Amino acid sequence: MFKNQYDTDVTTWSPAGRLFQVEYAMEAVKQGSAAIGLRSKTHVVLACVNKAQSELSSHQRKIFKVDDHIGVAIAGLTADGRVLSRYMRSECINYSFTYESPLPVGRLVVQLADKAQVCTQRSWKRPYGVGLLVGGLDESGAHLYYNCPSGNYFEYQAFAIGSRSQAAKTYLERKFETFDSASHEELIKHALFAIKETLQGEKLKSSNCTISVLGVDNPFQVLDSMMVQSWINSLEEEGPAAEETAAAADQEAVQPAAEQGAAPDEGSAPMEE
Amino acid sequence: MFKNQYDTDVTTWSPAGRLFQVEYAMEAVKQGSAAIGLRSKTHVVLACVNKAQSELSSHQRKIFKVDDHIGVAIAGLTADGRVLSRYMRSECINYSFTYESPLPVGRLVVQLADKAQVCTQRSWKRPYGVGLLVGGLDESGAHLYYNCPSGNYFEYQAFAIGSRSQAAKTYLERKFETFDSASHEELIKHALFAIKETLQGEKLKSSNCTISVLGVDNPFQVLDSMMVQSWINSLEEEGPAAEETAAAADQEAVQPAAEQGAAPDEGSAPMEE
Amino acid sequence: MFKNQYDTDVTTWSPAGRLFQVEYAMEAVKQGSAAIGLRSKTHVVLACVNKAQSELSSHQRKIFKVDDHIGVAIAGLTADGRVLSRYMRSECINYSFTYESPLPVGRLVVQLADKAQVCTQRSWKRPYGVGLLVGGLDESGAHLYYNCPSGNYFEYQAFAIGSRSQAAKTYLERKFETFDSASHEELIKHALFAIKETLQGEKLKSSNCTISVLGVDNPFQVLDSMMVQSWINSLEEEGPAAEETAAAADQEAVQPAAEQGAAPDEGSAPMEE
Amino acid sequence: MFKNQYDTDVTTWSPAGRLFQVEYAMEAVKQGSAAIGLRSKTHVVLACVNKAQSELSSHQRKIFKVDDHIGVAIAGLTADGRVLSRYMRSECINYSFTYESPLPVGRLVVQLADKAQVCTQRSWKRPYGVGLLVGGLDESGAHLYYNCPSGNYFEYQAFAIGSRSQAAKTYLERKFETFDSASHEELIKHALFAIKETLQGEKLKSSNCTISVLGVDNPFQVLDSMMVQSWINSLEEEGPAAEETAAAADQEAVQPAAEQGAAPDEGSAPMEE
Amino acid sequence: MFKNQYDTDVTTWSPAGRLFQVEYAMEAVKQGSAAIGLRSKTHVVLACVNKAQSELSSHQRKIFKVDDHIGVAIAGLTADGRVLSRYMRSECINYSFTYESPLPVGRLVVQLADKAQVCTQRSWKRPYGVGLLVGGLDESGAHLYYNCPSGNYFEYQAFAIGSRSQAAKTYLERKFETFDSASHEELIKHALFAIKETLQGEKLKSSNCTISVLGVDNPFQVLDSMMVQSWINSLEEEGPAAEETAAAADQEAVQPAAEQGAAPDEGSAPMEE
Amino acid sequence: MFKNQYDTDVTTWSPAGRLFQVEYAMEAVKQGSAAIGLRSKTHVVLACVNKAQSELSSHQRKIFKVDDHIGVAIAGLTADGRVLSRYMRSECINYSFTYESPLPVGRLVVQLADKAQVCTQRSWKRPYGVGLLVGGLDESGAHLYYNCPSGNYFEYQAFAIGSRSQAAKTYLERKFETFDSASHEELIKHALFAIKETLQGEKLKSSNCTISVLGVDNPFQVLDSMMVQSWINSLEEEGPAAEETAAAADQEAVQPAAEQGAAPDEGSAPMEE
Amino acid sequence: MFKNQYDTDVTTWSPAGRLFQVEYAMEAVKQGSAAIGLRSKTHVVLACVNKAQSELSSHQRKIFKVDDHIGVAIAGLTADGRVLSRYMRSECINYSFTYESPLPVGRLVVQLADKAQVCTQRSWKRPYGVGLLVGGLDESGAHLYYNCPSGNYFEYQAFAIGSRSQAAKTYLERKFETFDSASHEELIKHALFAIKETLQGEKLKSSNCTISVLGVDNPFQVLDSMMVQSWINSLEEEGPAAEETAAAADQEAVQPAAEQGAAPDEGSAPMEE
Repeated sequence: MFKNQYDTDVTTWSPAGRLFQVEYAMEAVKQGSAAIGLRSKTHVVLACVNKAQSELSSHQRKIFKVDDHIGVAIAGLTADGRVLSRYMRSECINYSFTYESPLPVGRLVVQLADKAQVCTQRSWKRPYGVGLLVGGLDESGAHLYYNCPSGNYFEYQAFAIGSRSQAAKTYLERKFETFDSASHEELIKHALFAIKETLQGEKLKSSNCTISVLGVDNPFQVLDSMMVQSWINSLEEEGPAAEETAAAADQEAVQPAAEQGAAPDEGSAPMEE
Repeated sequence: MFKNQYDTDVTTWSPAGRLFQVEYAMEAVKQGSAAIGLRSKTHVVLACVNKAQSELSSHQRKIFKVDDHIGVAIAGLTADGRVLSRYMRSECINYSFTYESPLPVGRLVVQLADKAQVCTQRSWKRPYGVGLLVGGLDESGAHLYYNCPSGNYFEYQAFAIGSRSQAAKTYLERKFETFDSASHEELIKHALFAIKETLQGEKLKSSNCTISVLGVDNPFQVLDSMMVQSWINSLEEEGPAAEETAAAADQEAVQPAAEQGAAPDEGSAPMEE
Repeated sequence: MFKNQYDTDVTTWSPAGRLFQVEYAMEAVKQGSAAIGLRSKTHVVLACVNKAQSELSSHQRKIFKVDDHIGVAIAGLTADGRVLSRYMRSECINYSFTYESPLPVGRLVVQLADKAQVCTQRSWKRPYGVGLLVGGLDESGAHLYYNCPSGNYFEYQAFAIGSRSQAAKTYLERKFETFDSASHEELIKHALFAIKETLQGEKLKSSNCTISVLGVDNPFQVLDSMMVQSWINSLEEEGPAAEETAAAADQEAVQPAAEQGAAPDEGSAPMEE
Repeated sequence: MFKNQYDTDVTTWSPAGRLFQVEYAMEAVKQGSAAIGLRSKTHVVLACVNKAQSELSSHQRKIFKVDDHIGVAIAGLTADGRVLSRYMRSECINYSFTYESPLPVGRLVVQLADKAQVCTQRSWKRPYGVGLLVGGLDESGAHLYYNCPSGNYFEYQAFAIGSRSQAAKTYLERKFETFDSASHEELIKHALFAIKETLQGEKLKSSNCTISVLGVDNPFQVLDSMMVQSWINSLEEEGPAAEETAAAADQEAVQPAAEQGAAPDEGSAPMEE
Repeated sequence: MFKNQYDTDVTTWSPAGRLFQVEYAMEAVKQGSAAIGLRSKTHVVLACVNKAQSELSSHQRKIFKVDDHIGVAIAGLTADGRVLSRYMRSECINYSFTYESPLPVGRLVVQLADKAQVCTQRSWKRPYGVGLLVGGLDESGAHLYYNCPSGNYFEYQAFAIGSRSQAAKTYLERKFETFDSASHEELIKHALFAIKETLQGEKLKSSNCTISVLGVDNPFQVLDSMMVQSWINSLEEEGPAAEETAAAADQEAVQPAAEQGAAPDEGSAPMEE
Repeated sequence: MFKNQYDTDVTTWSPAGRLFQVEYAMEAVKQGSAAIGLRSKTHVVLACVNKAQSELSSHQRKIFKVDDHIGVAIAGLTADGRVLSRYMRSECINYSFTYESPLPVGRLVVQLADKAQVCTQRSWKRPYGVGLLVGGLDESGAHLYYNCPSGNYFEYQAFAIGSRSQAAKTYLERKFETFDSASHEELIKHALFAIKETLQGEKLKSSNCTISVLGVDNPFQVLDSMMVQSWINSLEEEGPAAEETAAAADQEAVQPAAEQGAAPDEGSAPMEE
Repeated sequence: MFKNQYDTDVTTWSPAGRLFQVEYAMEAVKQGSAAIGLRSKTHVVLACVNKAQSELSSHQRKIFKVDDHIGVAIAGLTADGRVLSRYMRSECINYSFTYESPLPVGRLVVQLADKAQVCTQRSWKRPYGVGLLVGGLDESGAHLYYNCPSGNYFEYQAFAIGSRSQAAKTYLERKFETFDSASHEELIKHALFAIKETLQGEKLKSSNCTISVLGVDNPFQVLDSMMVQSWINSLEEEGPAAEETAAAADQEAVQPAAEQGAAPDEGSAPMEE
């Protein structure tokens, strides 16, 4: 077998100018159960799939409140994600204590990305193995960012990460033009449809997904299980919409294959743009 | 033989985005003798199997008191477990000294998980080789957590870790719906039945198991050997129940095989959810 | 396969006196999407190609304001570039606070290069994987520098880095003699033509390029998308010029092949001169 | 030959969840000459085999006084053992200086175990290569602990470690039920019989064993050579008892083979219980 | 292929008593474009070849002013050279601040060499990849030193380093006896002839060489491009001299081959003398 | 060839529980020229063989004064030995300054052994490559210790280390019973006979051995060359004694071969006893 | 090819108890050009061969003044030698400042040796690659020491190190008996004859050797070139003596071959004596 000698140390460049350890860490994000985010001008909805360990356990939390105006959904190593969201909370507290105003979302996202970058340039560390969808609201409106292990971040209208996230992204790409002016109720519905796409036939239940909302006059809030279930029920009543979706998906299965082929790695955030 | 070049260093990612050293440390938990935990709304029972070194020795302690309201049962490297439970004790003392109230269980569990996470991101350390079932009582009631070497933690109604814990988990899954409102006496009985499942025909005796209880008006307490034996005796008198269990187990041996096949690794706490 | 034993550690010399890890890091610059810079006596224009992750995302920023009189465009690892531009911003603030005058561009460029050099001489670090085109204005006029991962820097009249930058450089070399006295409007046009060369048939749109200007009485400014589009439109109206260019390019496709062959690596900044 | 890639670094886990370097260090204990300990409710006797380097030398000390109420016998690397017993002495002095009461045995044993655990989790150290039988007396009576290189400790009624310790353990297991209420004279006799078992036909002499006693009203004391010889002489006069032992041993040679086969590694203190 | 196991670590000796990494670093000097120095009793001239990256760029600076009485020309990694010349500048400033007199050249050269030696004796560093020709004037007259990556330095009447420097050295060796009493104008001419030798047929232009002068009543000064060109023009008018040189070179091509063969490595500064 | 993967790092255990690097360091002691020590109740004599580098040099010192009451003879790396004896001198000075009494020999020997032990448990160090015979006098009489690289020490009546020391040990074992009450003159004679045994036919001269004495009313003193020669002369006059020795040696050559075979490694101080 | 796994790390012992990296460093001494030293009771002469880099350069200094009463000649890596002689100078200055008397030679030599020993026991350093002949005068007369990379030192009447030093040593051994009472003029002549022996037919000139003298009423002084030449001239006038030497050498070429064979490595200072 070909032995790659450039891919065991995070500070070693490959001859082609790649940092394999950073790319491998980004694989960890793809292995995690899916998380999605989408936003209007005024609201952000973060959602994720809960893979319960067993009937006996609650699922592990994957959506965290950072501050009243910021929340985060993760995919990948949950321990890394928890440590990073604690860091974010602490930055928010310090900022608002010092400046008596909330920390702007974009600023926090940059600090987070810088913290990740350091882990890609020290031989005794490893890149974080987690992707974070950071949703937030500040004076410039609602924002959705994706921070990835390479120390890069991207701003999105809507995005999905984690395992089988491609299906959710396809859904979001078909719909995103309407998001900007959508009500938060509509965003929640879209989030649920997108989550459903990642379940591959598994039934959507309040027990296997978490939904959170944040927006103008809405401090960050994880919806409780009953409310999620009632949303799911209402979606099923609106069956046709879902069917239409399915139809569209079928259609899509024929046509856009080439397009998908052309961008098979769209889900991975490359280190270079 | 295929040589895996990604699995000797805790800070090295594999091409598939895995941290093998962390996964190997989780194997150590599976090698340890079994520990189980279960809770009602008001009480937590922790139990473990004692594998005596020889007739000459007492068994090594595997259940530790952390504070009046928190206890822990471990499986895996007992030295690592002891060091971590000492850390927990010290955190509890510092908290109650500073705030004059007991440290909330969930908060301690997060600190413990964060301490474990650090060991997965420094090249000169190794992940802890121990799993901890943390039982505790605070204002929000009784809790049972499982902290694993990856730096993850999970909340459970009931759980079992260590060698042959699958049998105990099967028992607990069949019964857990009644636990929430069970008396602590019932919890103890269930714990003993679950422990028995892991013994594979070996006789349940007070010498090969330890039981501890914690709950409202019950500071953490390891039951003394005589009390455990009297519990065991009373179970045997209630033989039918046990037989029923066995019958159910037989039945189960036929039907849910597929289900078990579908989740063969349920005992391992994955790093990603 | 021949295994190179000198190319995995940044502090290891090859027998021929090369530092392979530094050269590999320079490959990362070539993989990034293109960035170009050009200047007159009084103005600098920085431009770059935006490769959008998906329809859902905004592109990642690759042109940064450092100060009113300094801006930077990057190619390669954007996380490394962001960290370095933050360093530059901080140096500018400190200097102007202490001396009450703007930091001279050349001085900042040397500090930046020294910071990069350190990363080529410590075994626990890695060279930065980013090239920076630094444009600035000070008492000695407008300047354009290229800082590369080796810790070297070069002053240019016009330069292009990143993927397919050779085509842009060919364009710039044909035109640069007129740049020194060009208006900033002309510089912008040249920048757009150069960018177009790197797109390989892809259509030039305001969505796939960013343009910034800086000059006498013009603090650093990234042009907004609409303005960029209007520039693009005006270029297309001036079609003949473009065609002339294309013709020249055709002609060039015949003749200067040898010349290109003689300098195939012109795009890479060698460590030694 | 199969090359084990997981067994050269103390911080590397094997795929089966083992720390080979810790297990190898425990081998060093088995290579050392034997040490045994046994206790009644009020007294502890520690004994060891002295393997003289040559006629010219005194044997190396393997039993150390820690405090009036604590002593230790070692098997394995004597240099490591000496360093650890010096640590214990220093802890005892500090405790009694601060609290004006003797350090409880169990507490010292935990500190010792924690010190050993640290050496199993730092890449630049190695596990200690010594096993320690710690005998002590405190308010809860006489205690005998075994501390092993893994950072584990066990409490025993009687135990033997080091080379050929299995024979001694077999003797002790046959007799231990009488130890709890034995006089310290009886304990010494049992110790000598157990030591004799490890000598494999070599004659028991005061020159090849050391005996120490500790108990209520008996500060820790290593018996002088003449006293040991007189004890040995008295044993030989009581020949029948010894013969009976031999007979029993013969008998045992037939029957409990299976049992021994079932627990061949009883002498090694596993890392997990 | 034979794998040399002694040449990847700067602190590893080969069996023959060589430090290969230091020797490899000296190769980097040979790869750099040429630099030459020569001196009379009162003046030093430093010159170098400029290899322009492209038409678009100015060449990278390779001659640096250290102080009014000291200048340096480098060959090899320019980033290393720049960092070292900054160090030299800072030493000069500190010295003259403290002692109110200029730092003697020889003293600075020793400090520089000691700084280089340290990099050959620490496992986490690498030797500098640059050779420095240090020209200076102090109370004992004009000096020319060569500092090489091994931490050695040599005093020269005239010297050349870098690629194709052998031809320049041959020229200098033929002429150096007249240098000591030459005027600085004559030194400049000799420098230009020597530079010409390294160009291998490429035309000598003011754009591909830099000349600096330093001497009694002449603070260090890099000649401006126009002045260099006028010197070049005057040389061409004095064609015969050049031809004579060429003739001599032809002659030399026949005779001194053996001599050259006997000292093929003269250009490399050995670590031992 | 079989490659031992456990013997290049001092902190790596072999599967059989050995530290090969420590054992290899003990080989260095065996390679050094011989040193011997012997003592009566009141005196210690240390002696060593001097292997002169050449006629031109004095031999390197191998016997050092530590204090008036302590001396040391070494075999192995003399540089390591010198550094350790300087440490011992400094400990003696500090002790006597603080307590106004001489440092007891046994205490110094333990400190020395602890210093050696540390070098066997840190990955960036190496075990000392020297054996030390420490002779000293304190309130409990004269003592002779052997400190070896493993961090172990042993007390001896008489001992020999270094190359061909087995012959000297055989001599000493035959005679040692008379040493305890011998005069220091007799000890010197025995020392010379023992040294002679290690010379293998080479003539005993004052130039190839050093003798030192220490005892009651005799501060440590290295005998001067003339005195040593007069001792040698007097031995030769007493030829018969020597012959008798030779005869005994012959006799021994027949009989105790088996015994020697049974203890071929007696000269090496094992790490475990 | 056999790969030696013990010879790349200075802290790794070979199975035979050798430190190969230290031995390899001693090879570097043998590669350096020769240095010799010799002394009478009152004077020391140090001399060395100068291998000029080229006609253009002065040779690199290899004899350094340490203080008025101490000088040093080196062979091997000159950069290492320079750094060590600077250390010696600084020790002398500190001592004389503190004690107002010159630092005794022997004491300085020990400090130097200890500094070298440290480099043989730290994994991140390398042994110095230089041998030093230290000549000095103190109250006990004139001394000549040789310090080698292993951390050992030896006192000599006369010695030669470096390439082809064996011939010089042969000369010195034939003559050394007369050195003790020789005048310093005679010592200089002997030094020149010894140097001549190492030149292998190359002519002895003032340009290829350096001579220094130090003695009672003679502070350390390097003879100037003219004085050295006049010494050489006077030697040639005394031709017969030289011829006699040659004759003796011829004779020697026949007879002492065996002797030389018996001590082929006399030039290397072994680590053990």
